[in-house]
Amino acid sequence: MSGSRLINRLIESLRCLPSVGPKSAQRMAYHLLEHNRQGASQLANDLLEAIEHIGHCEQCRTLCENTLCDICNNQGRDQSAICVVESPADVQVIEQVAGYRGVYFVLMGHLSPLDGVGPLELGLEQLAKRLDAGAVSEVILATNPTVEGEATAHYIAEMAATRGIRATRLAHGVPIGGELEYVNGTTLSHAFHGRIEL
Amino acid sequence: MSGSRLINRLIESLRCLPSVGPKSAQRMAYHLLEHNRQGASQLANDLLEAIEHIGHCEQCRTLCENTLCDICNNQGRDQSAICVVESPADVQVIEQVAGYRGVYFVLMGHLSPLDGVGPLELGLEQLAKRLDAGAVSEVILATNPTVEGEATAHYIAEMAATRGIRATRLAHGVPIGGELEYVNGTTLSHAFHGRIEL
Repeated sequence: MSGSRLINRLIESLRCLPSVGPKSAQRMAYHLLEHNRQGASQLANDLLEAIEHIGHCEQCRTLCENTLCDICNNQGRDQSAICVVESPADVQVIEQVAGYRGVYFVLMGHLSPLDGVGPLELGLEQLAKRLDAGAVSEVILATNPTVEGEATAHYIAEMAATRGIRATRLAHGVPIGGELEYVNGTTLSHAFHGRIEL
Repeated sequence: MSGSRLINRLIESLRCLPSVGPKSAQRMAYHLLEHNRQGASQLANDLLEAIEHIGHCEQCRTLCENTLCDICNNQGRDQSAICVVESPADVQVIEQVAGYRGVYFVLMGHLSPLDGVGPLELGLEQLAKRLDAGAVSEVILATNPTVEGEATAHYIAEMAATRGIRATRLAHGVPIGGELEYVNGTTLSHAFHGRIEL
């Protein structure tokens, strides 16, 4: 490939972004250098600052720059309900829509023995300690509806059960606004079994 | 929006990338922070280095980190043929496929009077000087096959004609209304070989 060594290196680096292939990376690099060097410089600084300062919340393991995240640190939140999710992005999406007032526990993944991800890697000892402390009355399992997510949810439900704590799972069913015709079979089957009185 | 101030700022900054909306930016930020901090750090450094060191080639105006780009500086290239393109990405794509052995002139845009882009902004005085110097025998017009690109090509063809220099345009085969950067290699190669007098 011809062209500047620095530009080629930048194109290569841009490919660390998810879903960015060689063509997109090239387009991004030229766009930034030709039209938005200020934005690129801001991006570089924000990346460096985020990498340096962002760690994990000591209580819920989500990504944040303080010892405790804003949610764990908020006295107005109900500390007796813990919603267990796979990633910090899930916290964000639930906060945006669900009107949930409890706190979270972020696994940063799901059980996946073949990849070496067991209970220890997901911080389940830390979760066990919180459950043992006695202040928790409900664990809401909001892991993804995948095979691994379900397995993880069942594992944590067991942990709650042995401590006499209520464990709930987000309802599966037909998405609001969708069409029945396009709902997949498994979901429809779940929706049938979970039907409620009107 | 809840969540870390630094993460929100990073998400905002990522939107300086072309075709990256709020959802993609959020996904990118969490991906980097959870799974690839080393890549993010490399990206930040490469961005800063590129911004600091990459300027324009003194002869052809393409983006490069030296006074002259590798192509202008290459004694093996035919300095009597100048291929005029709109952007450095176009140089890259032509170099990759077309077997062209001349040099380039990069406009960094196209004539667009409504946006205040005239001959001066495209460096056409500099191009005129190169044509006046007498060593150029052909100007190959490889601006995009859009209305503005065609207008720019005709303007430069006039400049060449008044100096008795042959001006050619890439053959049709390049799809009308598209962008040069995304044309496939075979089409571009055909277009190069079938270039015609303007």
